[in-house]
Amino acid sequence: MKDFAPALLDAVRRSQRVLLTGPEGPDGDSIGACLALQRALRTLVPGVAIDVAGTPGFRYSWLLGAPEMLNDNKVGDYDGVVVLDGDRHRLPKQVGRSFAAARWTGLIDHHRSSGLDGYTLPWLEPKCESTCVMVRKLLATWNIALDRDYAEALYTGIIFDTGAFRYSNTTASTHRVAAELLDHGIEHWKICERVLMERRLPGVRLQARVCDNLRLLANDRVAMGVISRATFAELGADEHDVEGIIDALQNIAGVELAALLVERGNERCKLSLRSRGGVDVAALAQRISPAGGGHAKAAGASISLPLAGALVAVERAVVEALGG
Amino acid sequence: MKDFAPALLDAVRRSQRVLLTGPEGPDGDSIGACLALQRALRTLVPGVAIDVAGTPGFRYSWLLGAPEMLNDNKVGDYDGVVVLDGDRHRLPKQVGRSFAAARWTGLIDHHRSSGLDGYTLPWLEPKCESTCVMVRKLLATWNIALDRDYAEALYTGIIFDTGAFRYSNTTASTHRVAAELLDHGIEHWKICERVLMERRLPGVRLQARVCDNLRLLANDRVAMGVISRATFAELGADEHDVEGIIDALQNIAGVELAALLVERGNERCKLSLRSRGGVDVAALAQRISPAGGGHAKAAGASISLPLAGALVAVERAVVEALGG
Repeated sequence: MKDFAPALLDAVRRSQRVLLTGPEGPDGDSIGACLALQRALRTLVPGVAIDVAGTPGFRYSWLLGAPEMLNDNKVGDYDGVVVLDGDRHRLPKQVGRSFAAARWTGLIDHHRSSGLDGYTLPWLEPKCESTCVMVRKLLATWNIALDRDYAEALYTGIIFDTGAFRYSNTTASTHRVAAELLDHGIEHWKICERVLMERRLPGVRLQARVCDNLRLLANDRVAMGVISRATFAELGADEHDVEGIIDALQNIAGVELAALLVERGNERCKLSLRSRGGVDVAALAQRISPAGGGHAKAAGASISLPLAGALVAVERAVVEALGG
Repeated sequence: MKDFAPALLDAVRRSQRVLLTGPEGPDGDSIGACLALQRALRTLVPGVAIDVAGTPGFRYSWLLGAPEMLNDNKVGDYDGVVVLDGDRHRLPKQVGRSFAAARWTGLIDHHRSSGLDGYTLPWLEPKCESTCVMVRKLLATWNIALDRDYAEALYTGIIFDTGAFRYSNTTASTHRVAAELLDHGIEHWKICERVLMERRLPGVRLQARVCDNLRLLANDRVAMGVISRATFAELGADEHDVEGIIDALQNIAGVELAALLVERGNERCKLSLRSRGGVDVAALAQRISPAGGGHAKAAGASISLPLAGALVAVERAVVEALGG
């Protein structure tokens, strides 16, 4: 970080246009990090145009700067492109083109799965709980004083990636950063509601349907939920409403592994896996599908099978993983 | 607090037996506070017997000292009784008798609704987010060094009363205390799972049923859920499984007021109310029933009507509160 902070500033100073971007479908941590860094760079290097790519969902549209974010298809050419909270392999198509054409490229990320190659300026901290905490460190290095708007953006990212301080990646230091952000008078409970807790009515009904029909396997150590396209249609729900449903399955007393299988097309399903016990679901996801992967406690996979076939394959693999 | 800390120690020193107790049906904050204070007093005044009253549910049975808590019916006579995180009017019957017979009585509480009268040693801090934070202050005053067991008990109370830092009573200071507790190496994510997130399967199914059948009133600004005794019986669920269901109703996008009506007997219903908007649900609860009350954002009432009649009364009052 010592070298990265001045090097990034230097690269921006030698540029006319810089793009900050998360991966495709940016989440709270990448959006918060991009918007906070955008403000900081605009303050430090006023002559340079700093854009942020991505379309913020309703959970993030209230953030300062969110309305000016650029739709991925509208990004053009840039001297430099910085990827935050993700990996250059997961960029939207058009943003990927800007990345490939840029004179310099940066990475600010905390994902273990990201690599350092392919950037002129990479900064990777796999032990950090959130990219927003990394941006907080950058701001401190640059002597930028926090204010309420910075605090809102950074708090958004931190609660997104730590599940509002409930996940095991939360440390004493996370709470100390949060204390500092709350010192700036943010209405943190409203941010929590908006970013983490609020659900659309079709999403609430979708979760109800999944929980009504969930099945327990392997002596009740596995909770398995399924969503068909017919259910989406019946309830007026879409992919965004799936958010949070796997957590409900995972939090059932005694359940060590939760699996949620979502039908996306004729021979296309999306599997989400969560582990509270000893099973490494990243490895399990890869056994189920070559396109699977993730973290030991949270992983996913795309499965090129019809729903019924995918269900059989997943059940077999899951029961096997728990020792039959 | 300056006077309270030495006065409490002095009273304990002049006693042979002291009882610490929460209100009836103690929650995470009262249990955590009682157990931490018990340990501290035992250390400071080794000759005195310090009991904690109450039966810890499965969410708290793992806490150090929880297995030795006294069933409310087994408490006897004490020189002093200290009520933590509650009010002397809400004590279980037998504990209330011990309280009435005690030579001295204490209060350590943060509830706005508690009064100072009726105790020889009251300490009330309505602005404090949790009784465990008050106990943390006591320990500091007494120069008791925190350790992992203290940290687990105090963290339990703090996350219970702040909804794991998501409620508006959370302050920068809450996060600073949490940081200090995490410094002692507690597995905080397991505590969050156990205390806040884990649900029994019948509870998950009960929530699904409520959400499947929820009704929106007053232009979708009110979400109304109902649980009949028949549903409890059908799903094998009980009162404990109701926990958390009102939150699911409250978090529906656009909903300002959530109401959950639970049938408890022939002419006995329990109403829970939550407000995210401008409606003061404590006042609303009191309009619905003389036995209603609580906080502006979270309140409840007992209603002496059959379920169908209670439903009509609640709907009318709720729609009225939102201006028709």
